[in-house]
Amino acid sequence: MTKNTKVNAAILIIGNEILSGRTQDTNTGTIALWLNTIGVKVQEVRVIPDKERTIINTVNELRKINDYVFTTGGIGPTHDDITAESISKAFNLNYEIHDDAFKILEAYYKPGEFNEGRQKMVWMPKNAKLILNPTSGAPGFNVENVFCLPGVPSILKSMLGGLKDKIIGGEPILSHTINLRTVESEIAKSLTNVQDSNKDMEIGSYPFFQAGKLGVSIVIRSENQSKIDACILQILKFVNKKKIEVVNR
Amino acid sequence: MTKNTKVNAAILIIGNEILSGRTQDTNTGTIALWLNTIGVKVQEVRVIPDKERTIINTVNELRKINDYVFTTGGIGPTHDDITAESISKAFNLNYEIHDDAFKILEAYYKPGEFNEGRQKMVWMPKNAKLILNPTSGAPGFNVENVFCLPGVPSILKSMLGGLKDKIIGGEPILSHTINLRTVESEIAKSLTNVQDSNKDMEIGSYPFFQAGKLGVSIVIRSENQSKIDACILQILKFVNKKKIEVVNR
Repeated sequence: MTKNTKVNAAILIIGNEILSGRTQDTNTGTIALWLNTIGVKVQEVRVIPDKERTIINTVNELRKINDYVFTTGGIGPTHDDITAESISKAFNLNYEIHDDAFKILEAYYKPGEFNEGRQKMVWMPKNAKLILNPTSGAPGFNVENVFCLPGVPSILKSMLGGLKDKIIGGEPILSHTINLRTVESEIAKSLTNVQDSNKDMEIGSYPFFQAGKLGVSIVIRSENQSKIDACILQILKFVNKKKIEVVNR
Repeated sequence: MTKNTKVNAAILIIGNEILSGRTQDTNTGTIALWLNTIGVKVQEVRVIPDKERTIINTVNELRKINDYVFTTGGIGPTHDDITAESISKAFNLNYEIHDDAFKILEAYYKPGEFNEGRQKMVWMPKNAKLILNPTSGAPGFNVENVFCLPGVPSILKSMLGGLKDKIIGGEPILSHTINLRTVESEIAKSLTNVQDSNKDMEIGSYPFFQAGKLGVSIVIRSENQSKIDACILQILKFVNKKKIEVVNR
């Protein structure tokens, strides 16, 4: 595995409704789980308000330090949908009608229904590449490494398949979970030893409560299955020694 | 209402498990909804990995541009719990045993159960102020305007009450929602007019699907109830004119 196979991404959730607590973001999980399978690791998520200057600055910061940036939200027809215009400004591109997007929506709606509000959704940064939307017509788009997706979770989910050819990932990120009937403090020292002797592995410890009982999930993540297997063995060794029960969840 | 009554916060979610998509963050919503009631507005959320340098840099950036910063996660007993040590470094403070936290946990656990793993949870930045934990003993803490809370949602929730005296909010942030049986494109132009004539109001438009039908929620947010009422009237005016149905959700 060479260093080149590490591919990183940031997710940028645009929307006052997440910051106010009104809406629970689920798009982060959807995108992150999908990116795992194509070998792209999310290294940062930001949630920001529908403010043009904030969107521009954040996009310009994130796109330089990540291989990919995925934005969600703000590409609908209303006044608070300012993502496309802000991305245009971030890249210093004209904000204009995208001919192909126009044709798609013209064909999607019944005659007379492609009204002014809906036409807003075909305004994009000049030469943006479309991300097709099999659910509700209006496409997303990307400019260079910034991919703009809608905020509605079901629509976003349906569009990820269309991104596959546009993103070059690394090795898929693999994960293994061991669930134990114990508490974190019982295994903290032994688990630290395993982490210390496997510094390039991501080993996490997460307490859980299930059916009134406490437990701990140990999660091992890496692109390398044999290294994961080696960690599993080291963990099971101390687990057996301490007579801790391994459980299913 | 003077400008001084605007109080802002950032939420910093620390944890690989959120970035990997394994765990769905719900703490953002919990904290944001609670902050609304005490007049603190969340203007940014970041999710970052369990990496010391990233935590230090992000905390130092956020604490300077926000009145308050709330971190979640990374204050447990295992090797991946590095929030307290990272915050110490961010503030250039010694990372040491906190006497009061030690006494609390010594009394909380049965004799002999306050083991090495658990004792890690009383290591904090020097002179940190404790945030009591009515659920599971181990306290959170704050240094200046940075408040460190645990990642487990039920425990975090139980600790918010103990923050009330430590945070000086502004006017509570009020919100009103109007649910309409329509699609966004039908109301986009009229709603833009309302926003344009009420520039200091936060007006959001959010499509929803319920029982197989499309709808739009319009959310108006402000510290000023009479301004919210004025917006409601202006919105209902065009809603009636367009013969759009107002619905309950």
